[in-house]
Amino acid sequence: MNEPSKTPWTREEFEARLRCMEKFYHIHHPYHVLMDEGKLNRKQIQGWVANRFYYQINIPLKDAAILANCPDRETRIQWVQRIIDHDGSADQPGGIEAWIQLGIAVGLERDEITSLRHVLPGVRFAVDAYVNFARTAEWHEAASSSLTELFAPAIHQQRLSNWPVNYPWIDQKGFLYFQNRLSQARRDVEHGLQLTLDWYKTREEQDKMLRILKFKLDVLWSMADAMYLAYITEMPPYHSVKESMP
Amino acid sequence: MNEPSKTPWTREEFEARLRCMEKFYHIHHPYHVLMDEGKLNRKQIQGWVANRFYYQINIPLKDAAILANCPDRETRIQWVQRIIDHDGSADQPGGIEAWIQLGIAVGLERDEITSLRHVLPGVRFAVDAYVNFARTAEWHEAASSSLTELFAPAIHQQRLSNWPVNYPWIDQKGFLYFQNRLSQARRDVEHGLQLTLDWYKTREEQDKMLRILKFKLDVLWSMADAMYLAYITEMPPYHSVKESMP
Repeated sequence: MNEPSKTPWTREEFEARLRCMEKFYHIHHPYHVLMDEGKLNRKQIQGWVANRFYYQINIPLKDAAILANCPDRETRIQWVQRIIDHDGSADQPGGIEAWIQLGIAVGLERDEITSLRHVLPGVRFAVDAYVNFARTAEWHEAASSSLTELFAPAIHQQRLSNWPVNYPWIDQKGFLYFQNRLSQARRDVEHGLQLTLDWYKTREEQDKMLRILKFKLDVLWSMADAMYLAYITEMPPYHSVKESMP
Repeated sequence: MNEPSKTPWTREEFEARLRCMEKFYHIHHPYHVLMDEGKLNRKQIQGWVANRFYYQINIPLKDAAILANCPDRETRIQWVQRIIDHDGSADQPGGIEAWIQLGIAVGLERDEITSLRHVLPGVRFAVDAYVNFARTAEWHEAASSSLTELFAPAIHQQRLSNWPVNYPWIDQKGFLYFQNRLSQARRDVEHGLQLTLDWYKTREEQDKMLRILKFKLDVLWSMADAMYLAYITEMPPYHSVKESMP
């Protein structure tokens, strides 16, 4: 006897289920909770900015991988804007450069950021998993994995509101990235959300989409885990290695 | 003016440099130190066995990826033995099944292990990074990344010596995996080491090999980090998520 197929969620219900995944967003990770409460020290803020840079520079690669698998011109026309937002153009710096400016505002040297020397292996593996998913997944599925951006405006707004008070030592010129993303993320979400609500038809497909979104939430949570262990628990990789060993 | 090329290390010196990387082996990670000292509880031992299973099942995929890029029949004849060791054959269970037996010996159900339900995202991303490297790297480089097995017999021997004393509640029938790997790893090391010492000629290439070995050590360390945070610090993924949230 076959299991009867589950009834698909309506468009509204499916969207509500997606939004419900906010409970797993890294805004609830202890690293980000401490950050929002003003409890991180300078080194912990710097560690986050330097590590998150690896995510920033991989976003255009992830988006290009989606484009590379997408035969639909209409979608490409809209999706390519994400690459331009991050990379900028001849006369416009773009999101990667804005992130470097944030790094400088928290006291890092440009080369400390761009050399990736502070990037933890756990952060690298998580981000690489995301890019690799975009390279190998069906393109609608890869595109829909970006939907954690549903939850991003709240975290950017939180930083814009609380950082000037909690971290007065950070040069506020560095906050441009968060400001820009408030409007960019809202536009990206609109496109990504319509594409997702259109694509997943059956309940089994809708369930799959929730698993894909969970995978992306795992990427973000896992990045924060690696930073927590390195900078809060103070167990960076190889901290227990005795240099005198053979 | 060109920088003068560095002098290549002799074969003996290159091998000594590789062996020196033992200091970064996960045998020195706090999780494994606690394990060896008999300080892990049942749940922490189970967590390690269940997570490490994800590594075990990916080893044949990693080795097949190396074969798939290797045009040299002589190498394939030897390398294919690794896949057979892990997968076994019709009348021989193999390493994956031996690992499941270890899992059962520490009190896990077979399905708890094979369903991968305990596998942490950080462990998954680290292992996937290793398989992905094997898929995309030049095949000698991929093969040489296996050389952490230089250091493996010591950790297997340590477990065989200390676990019966420290963890008397574990059924000793479960230790077959460690016993088998003592001889298999020694044979694999011999092949992998000769292949590596032959392949990297210039000092720049030899330096690259050390970076590849470090990447593989990062994979193992990062796996132990994820387990430490989940089972020692008791911060498994989403532990701080309030289920009552919207």
